[in-house]
Amino acid sequence: MKIGILGTGTVAQALGTKLAHVGHEVRLGSRDAQNPKAAAWSAHAPLASHGTFADAAAHGAILINATNGLATMDVLAAAGSDNMAGKVLIDASNPIDFSSGDPLPVLRPGNGDSLAEMIQRTYPRTPVVKALNTVNAELMVNPSAVAGEHLLFMAGDDERAKALALDLLGELGWPADRVMDLGGLVAARALEAYLLLWVAVMRTKGTSLFNVSLTAN
Amino acid sequence: MKIGILGTGTVAQALGTKLAHVGHEVRLGSRDAQNPKAAAWSAHAPLASHGTFADAAAHGAILINATNGLATMDVLAAAGSDNMAGKVLIDASNPIDFSSGDPLPVLRPGNGDSLAEMIQRTYPRTPVVKALNTVNAELMVNPSAVAGEHLLFMAGDDERAKALALDLLGELGWPADRVMDLGGLVAARALEAYLLLWVAVMRTKGTSLFNVSLTAN
Repeated sequence: MKIGILGTGTVAQALGTKLAHVGHEVRLGSRDAQNPKAAAWSAHAPLASHGTFADAAAHGAILINATNGLATMDVLAAAGSDNMAGKVLIDASNPIDFSSGDPLPVLRPGNGDSLAEMIQRTYPRTPVVKALNTVNAELMVNPSAVAGEHLLFMAGDDERAKALALDLLGELGWPADRVMDLGGLVAARALEAYLLLWVAVMRTKGTSLFNVSLTAN
Repeated sequence: MKIGILGTGTVAQALGTKLAHVGHEVRLGSRDAQNPKAAAWSAHAPLASHGTFADAAAHGAILINATNGLATMDVLAAAGSDNMAGKVLIDASNPIDFSSGDPLPVLRPGNGDSLAEMIQRTYPRTPVVKALNTVNAELMVNPSAVAGEHLLFMAGDDERAKALALDLLGELGWPADRVMDLGGLVAARALEAYLLLWVAVMRTKGTSLFNVSLTAN
């Protein structure tokens, strides 16, 4: 399948490498078609290419937003509404702003809204699935880097899009019984707000290689 | 020890019953000294009494805020700054507002602030520890109601207050190795924002008897 990944950072490269490795034609997109990180990556990964955000969006049958959440709306404007129409967008980003200097970030948007919902409102022809934003890049593509039956979460309004996302998460190494579907995209507010706890735990434990499990009776 | 609990609802009664059972003199506080719920509770619990918010605050050497988070600042004003001075306040509340009709609440305050920090700013003579707000009343006093090594979290600026809170959590059934200290009270932002995920999971699983564990490598 053709997959367009918006972004060229750690998350984009980790997802791109794994998805190319399992046989997908992956294109990374960045602001600059000659982005040196993306060029170096695509030179070494099979089935890999790179280009602008619009190139990546036009290429993919599935899109993944792996950009900084604070830059996402600008990135999607550059990607182009028509290039994204009818395609599932998996939003792995976090709109977290550390500019206040506080140890915990502020969410922009947050508290009554989420970036994923903002994307969905702005691009109604592109079903958005929030996923992957609650673990670091290594865990995204290698869940067994941390022991135990820890979980990913997913939220979205389109059931077909979530089924497609679930297949893709399976290819990344996450079996369906370890992906909890929290329902409609409104639950992206919970997944983005969880980042505050993620950051607090990361600072406490001194590692980003951790994840949560749920036990219920 | 004398413990003052602000509130008379499910959380206040669960905590009060358990703490009286292990030998503390517990007083529940409410707006009305004749509150029928509190009167019925104190008639059946040993070492139990009830009164106004000010009565409960004056009584306790340790205080627990078990009120609705949206009412907390009014409750504390009624409790009285002098009655709370020099006492540790364990804030178990959540400032969650469902009035928008959305399935997930809005935090008031939230996103760059927390209720626990607002309490601490307003009552600097009362060291505040955020704890217990991430599980339901039953789990607060009976962690084994859910299997596994699931966790509580704690945050506060005063180390002595956190040591006291840790002892109290131990009496509630939470061994110290299952209480993660996330550092300064700023981390209360993470614990209050976690409620969005708690509500989303509660709606998905149809139970409030669940909790999170962390696995790290």
